[in-house]
Amino acid sequence: MAAGKFKIALIQLTVGKDKNANLHKAESLIREAAENNARVISLPECFNSPYDTGCFPDYAETIPGGITSDCLSKLARECRIYLIGGSIPEKDGDNFYNTCAVFGPQGDFLGKYRKMHLFDIDIPGKIKFKESVTLTGGSELFTFDTEWCKIGIGICRDIRFPELASLYAQKGCKLICYPAAFSMITGPPDWEVLIRAIALQNQLYVTAISPARDDSPGACYTAYGHSMISNPGGDVIASTKEKESIVYGEVDLKRLDEIREGLPLMIQKRYDVYSPVKVITAGVCKVCHN
Amino acid sequence: MAAGKFKIALIQLTVGKDKNANLHKAESLIREAAENNARVISLPECFNSPYDTGCFPDYAETIPGGITSDCLSKLARECRIYLIGGSIPEKDGDNFYNTCAVFGPQGDFLGKYRKMHLFDIDIPGKIKFKESVTLTGGSELFTFDTEWCKIGIGICRDIRFPELASLYAQKGCKLICYPAAFSMITGPPDWEVLIRAIALQNQLYVTAISPARDDSPGACYTAYGHSMISNPGGDVIASTKEKESIVYGEVDLKRLDEIREGLPLMIQKRYDVYSPVKVITAGVCKVCHN
Repeated sequence: MAAGKFKIALIQLTVGKDKNANLHKAESLIREAAENNARVISLPECFNSPYDTGCFPDYAETIPGGITSDCLSKLARECRIYLIGGSIPEKDGDNFYNTCAVFGPQGDFLGKYRKMHLFDIDIPGKIKFKESVTLTGGSELFTFDTEWCKIGIGICRDIRFPELASLYAQKGCKLICYPAAFSMITGPPDWEVLIRAIALQNQLYVTAISPARDDSPGACYTAYGHSMISNPGGDVIASTKEKESIVYGEVDLKRLDEIREGLPLMIQKRYDVYSPVKVITAGVCKVCHN
Repeated sequence: MAAGKFKIALIQLTVGKDKNANLHKAESLIREAAENNARVISLPECFNSPYDTGCFPDYAETIPGGITSDCLSKLARECRIYLIGGSIPEKDGDNFYNTCAVFGPQGDFLGKYRKMHLFDIDIPGKIKFKESVTLTGGSELFTFDTEWCKIGIGICRDIRFPELASLYAQKGCKLICYPAAFSMITGPPDWEVLIRAIALQNQLYVTAISPARDDSPGACYTAYGHSMISNPGGDVIASTKEKESIVYGEVDLKRLDEIREGLPLMIQKRYDVYSPVKVITAGVCKVCHN
């Protein structure tokens, strides 16, 4: 593939109750994607555990150091890929987080992102879910560098908050990856619009990676599926439906530059208006007078 | 109409070179919308002048005080409506702006909004336009209060900047009106996604009001049309195609509250992360060390 381009793969995995089975399935699909020359591969949200607040403490691990981190590190090294580890329940002291761990082509732990905006929803007669019952929200952005571009991470509901994406764009990200598990209530109306909007508003690539849909009677949560890649013009360049599958796409940084040159948005941002810089003189801020 | 609801009208006007004819046409359609019980009525971007940087200085007026402001004030008073005056070229000293003037039901001038993000575009072989040749961008948000809710104003390209909409949501707006004139290059792929996204991301009503399409040989700019209203769930509740017409819709604040209760986004905003407050001690900001 030409310089300035790389292939990405979204692993739309079927997730069950057996953590080891989830890890084995993930491994098998990641190896397949790497053999097909994907250089950046992402798993979906909550890929080693049922998406169930009651399960999170039992499935939680430390990051790095847990068996899932070890498994992902080994896979990244063996396949020589950047591996975005979807998310798993993380335990840190007394707190639990919904966390994405990222590993580089030498198996190195590049860092982690903790879901900032938790999934609390209560639409009477339709859906009720409250992550904040067991989880704590993160407070830090996370980006990592590759030889092609900087990549930022959000998780699921984070995609509804354009402020986060704007901050990633401001930091120079050309791709934002959102491991996610939208529901059957929120997915059909909102999923594609939100993905395309983040791409259009920030003129960058966006990927959203869902688990496959499990609508069997025993399933505790039914994900929408429809893992998807949008280019910086807001066009969906690859997607799938609800079944287990791998979505491949190309990130073309020359195309991104062309779009930004033709329609210059990034240089028009009015940070002076959005977040006025405080000017401090003799201990007093000229903006807020504190 | 029940309390907590009001009817809005979007005047998708055909705009030509004759300013008086434009004003008469606008008056006629505004009176029609008011007779149909619209209480908040909006005109499109650049409704009294051709959309042409070369024309802006010749058509520019002071706001308030020019003949267009006087005409809109009179109409607002006579029809007892809130009138969002799309936009017109404004002259202020040596500067020109693309400005929206708003009038209340007593004909009172409620204030004005100057387009913040100017339309500069150069897609080779497709479209080239540079507002910044003659116009200066504004630097102030503008909102006004009605008996139903607070309303915020953006103009056209401003809709591509989610930061502005977030600020309006933060100020308590339940409706953002964007007089706009998207082109035939940017309209078809981007218009609807951007409108629905601002509504979804901020859980408020969004209106976008375009001039009617004039694709006659002499036209200097061909607008996309498709004036549109999205509800806070991101659903298009009313729209039109390219011809001159009035789009009517209902703003239902109870429905807005239900959406925000079911899927609480506004209370989850992480302003502590998006715009960390600078703490100043002894003249030094702990964040930036200035």
